Amino acid sequence: MSSRSMRRKNPGVFIVGAGPGASDLITVRGLRLLKSADVVFYDALIDFEMLGHARRGARLIFVGKRCGSKAMEQPEINRRMIDAARSGKVAVRLKGGDPYLFGRGGEEALACSRAGVHFEVAPGVSSALGAASHAGIPLTYRDAASSVAFVTARDCDDANSLSALTRAAQAVDTLVIFMGGLRLKQIKGSLLAGGLSPQTAVAVVSQATLRDQRTVYGVLDGVEELVHAAGLSTPMLIIVGKVVALGAVLNWFERRKSEDAWESSDRPDLRAPGIL
Amino acid sequence: MSSRSMRRKNPGVFIVGAGPGASDLITVRGLRLLKSADVVFYDALIDFEMLGHARRGARLIFVGKRCGSKAMEQPEINRRMIDAARSGKVAVRLKGGDPYLFGRGGEEALACSRAGVHFEVAPGVSSALGAASHAGIPLTYRDAASSVAFVTARDCDDANSLSALTRAAQAVDTLVIFMGGLRLKQIKGSLLAGGLSPQTAVAVVSQATLRDQRTVYGVLDGVEELVHAAGLSTPMLIIVGKVVALGAVLNWFERRKSEDAWESSDRPDLRAPGIL
Repeated sequence: MSSRSMRRKNPGVFIVGAGPGASDLITVRGLRLLKSADVVFYDALIDFEMLGHARRGARLIFVGKRCGSKAMEQPEINRRMIDAARSGKVAVRLKGGDPYLFGRGGEEALACSRAGVHFEVAPGVSSALGAASHAGIPLTYRDAASSVAFVTARDCDDANSLSALTRAAQAVDTLVIFMGGLRLKQIKGSLLAGGLSPQTAVAVVSQATLRDQRTVYGVLDGVEELVHAAGLSTPMLIIVGKVVALGAVLNWFERRKSEDAWESSDRPDLRAPGIL
Repeated sequence: MSSRSMRRKNPGVFIVGAGPGASDLITVRGLRLLKSADVVFYDALIDFEMLGHARRGARLIFVGKRCGSKAMEQPEINRRMIDAARSGKVAVRLKGGDPYLFGRGGEEALACSRAGVHFEVAPGVSSALGAASHAGIPLTYRDAASSVAFVTARDCDDANSLSALTRAAQAVDTLVIFMGGLRLKQIKGSLLAGGLSPQTAVAVVSQATLRDQRTVYGVLDGVEELVHAAGLSTPMLIIVGKVVALGAVLNWFERRKSEDAWESSDRPDLRAPGIL
């Protein structure tokens, strides 16, 4: 009997959060599932290095999605995952961040449930928490922040996601805006319309937790210019609120990087807005 | 030369998110740091099984904190971590969930920074995301939810955390309330004051991701009775909003548990509020 056939098979669809970027920020469970997969459906937002953990012979299928260009439509992804599970395979759906926070994991889980296919969901470190820890910005902090909202600006439907920003602007102490790097002007407008001051502290974190992570710190008024001047690349995460000022002293990751001289031209810009 | 002295020492304070509960939901990096620790300062909210990964000879120090009873005060924790790092040790601060989301990790990082001690922060899976994935409740979902806020009811200062709830109530589609299990009445009052309907869907997740996880689903009006009748134990996480209805079909974890007959008397209560 080969080792393969002796392996206990637990067919089904496993929707796994791969974490915020760095390949060692996947969970132990996520890694175990990845290693056991017969087929892996993976996103654009994962560290491809991670795929090296898949076993020899596992099929690796790119199903990356971004506004404007999709490798595969959602119903097709669902259908192929369900087919794989039905044919007795372990299908892992590897998604950047966490599957249930702007990850469309709910749609995929519901498709499995409706198809009567066994599924499980393994949570991941949200990219928001990767960015916060690696840009030195606690999302909550003593009296400065006791609530935080996560909002997306990803959806191509402007009206909805922008009005969500306006609604949330003053309702919480810290705002984290996902996928907003290319829509800074509209985001700024929505937040000002929601009552935030142009002097509200803002950080934009590019490539969070990866070697190329870069963060700029500033205020709402002028955030577009700051990001363009720095030449930041997507994916970007935007953090808004008083806690941003802590980045001036708590950004251990980019500081270490410059100390290690990985990229001498890539020194972190640690200007504190001087709020805390 | 002993293997110990050959081991590359990288002294400092490593603030590590242990994840939402289950011991395999720590990150690969977090586990590596835990294994390398000379001293581990750990919380009440971690799975103690996880401590078995610490190397032989590592000191394990309980510094758990809950409202009303603290094993060690925060300044004392900070001082001991800093002392350990200064004496050339790898000090791991193992915290439930994520350090920068209601974890007081910011205060600890700032203490290290001020002391000039090397520190790093390893993010973790938030207990909110553990609860969401294991109670079958995507925090965002298509048109039903494009924003989510995390608020704490932990602080013993009523006025602040309750007013944060009132402010956030209608500003986002999904609300996650941390540490609110013992204050359901006040939370309900704050949310109603914030304009939510008494018929708003609510789930309360107890012991998220652990073997003893139990979730009750209902509506805001009557949530206290539901939780008391079920006899749920802390820690509890409260999720509010339309997405809660998805738990009726997506709670794979408690359903599997009852199928496995781990605890035959502990069947999940999967009544759908019938909103989606």
